[in-house]
Amino acid sequence: MQKNKNCNVVLLGTGNVVWHLGHAMLKSQISLIQVYGRNKTQLTALANEWHVPFTDNLNCLSPEADIYLFALKDGAYQEICSVFPFRNACMAHTSGNVDNSVFQSLTRHGGVIYPFQTFTKGFPLAFHEVPLCIDTNDPECEGKLLFLAGKLSRIFCKISSIQRKQLHLSGVFACNFTNALYTLAQKIAEEKELDFNLLRPLIAETARKVQTHFPEEMQTGPAIRNDIEIIKNHIELLKDPQIKELYHILTECIIKNAKNKS
Amino acid sequence: MQKNKNCNVVLLGTGNVVWHLGHAMLKSQISLIQVYGRNKTQLTALANEWHVPFTDNLNCLSPEADIYLFALKDGAYQEICSVFPFRNACMAHTSGNVDNSVFQSLTRHGGVIYPFQTFTKGFPLAFHEVPLCIDTNDPECEGKLLFLAGKLSRIFCKISSIQRKQLHLSGVFACNFTNALYTLAQKIAEEKELDFNLLRPLIAETARKVQTHFPEEMQTGPAIRNDIEIIKNHIELLKDPQIKELYHILTECIIKNAKNKS
Repeated sequence: MQKNKNCNVVLLGTGNVVWHLGHAMLKSQISLIQVYGRNKTQLTALANEWHVPFTDNLNCLSPEADIYLFALKDGAYQEICSVFPFRNACMAHTSGNVDNSVFQSLTRHGGVIYPFQTFTKGFPLAFHEVPLCIDTNDPECEGKLLFLAGKLSRIFCKISSIQRKQLHLSGVFACNFTNALYTLAQKIAEEKELDFNLLRPLIAETARKVQTHFPEEMQTGPAIRNDIEIIKNHIELLKDPQIKELYHILTECIIKNAKNKS
Repeated sequence: MQKNKNCNVVLLGTGNVVWHLGHAMLKSQISLIQVYGRNKTQLTALANEWHVPFTDNLNCLSPEADIYLFALKDGAYQEICSVFPFRNACMAHTSGNVDNSVFQSLTRHGGVIYPFQTFTKGFPLAFHEVPLCIDTNDPECEGKLLFLAGKLSRIFCKISSIQRKQLHLSGVFACNFTNALYTLAQKIAEEKELDFNLLRPLIAETARKVQTHFPEEMQTGPAIRNDIEIIKNHIELLKDPQIKELYHILTECIIKNAKNKS
């Protein structure tokens, strides 16, 4: 595909990732030519929002796509590969964990474009700031995915499959577990009728500090000060033994990390 | 103190909180008339930066302050109270944990103005977005602290001592432990030569999502999808038994929380 050419994409899936990818494509020079999905309600909603052709029948897939881009549940790939109608197409998925060889029975041109972000349908974000990580062993697929990535985001790179799986794991800590801590913090505050609004500036600032610095440099709180008295008080205030254990482990992580640094 | 009057403040301390409070005062209509500190290097640095009088001798404290505002280490209050030169002044500290009665041997007008934020010296922030929580049993002190708070921030409220201590605890989860997770995420990424820059947009977005929504609504990842396969893979990828345990606990928190909701 030449640099000045367009890129026709068929999106397969109707979930959070497809919602964001589709929106990003419609704002870019990428042609979203069709959306496929099995969930008819979600499929119709997306198609109506975007005014693009849609189908729930794999036999009606457009043969014109430069890239068939899948964002399905990790467990759904085996089944869809057994009934996909084309051979030797460029096929890519968006998962952090599914092998890049998942399409190998159908094509040599398989790969992954992994958008490293937390996506919620209906919650828009600046897609050009989403790192797009490309993992493929096929040069033709790589060329197409790099072209697509460059049109959708200013941050894109090639990574290995091992790196992609590790990145996914690190994202669970940076995002999913962080959000779980926000939920816990909210519950702890609400036990004493404190509004979550009080916590929002703190959450925003904690994330802002590491946009220009490393988290190690920005650590504050009783653990980094080794303030045994407060740590003891805090563990007493917590009721759930599992949350006490969580407090212990994270406090030890902070103390250990400070020791390794010094 | 009338609403249209100025407010003279003496700041006691030279740490992160004082650095931010002082900057906020210099931008406001509050008069920072003096800074006291025991650490001469830090004290001189602050005084030179701000061009305000300073002293390391409590006997040279200005008697003109409407509020003596302390931001010391939690353990330092007892000692300073034993040598503080004035009686019945308005005295307030900024700690999440120190009792609001800590000044009671010196004054009836003691209290707390707790800025609920993570402060790092030299890392500026929008102080008018910092929630200032006022905890005092004295009406005169309350009036002065509310006046001060209203000049420094658009977010201020009265809270009880029990609420303040609980808020501090919730902040440890929302900020200090969250930052510890960022550090872990960085280490996990760097094990496979992945740059922390890849994680920054994810961290920013995770915090941004809860500025307008509750974290429960924004939870993503393998735990909330109950994706046993990935969870198993992830725990295998982790080497440190304590981090494995951390993964377990946070995954269970997310699953339990989803069950309680549905």
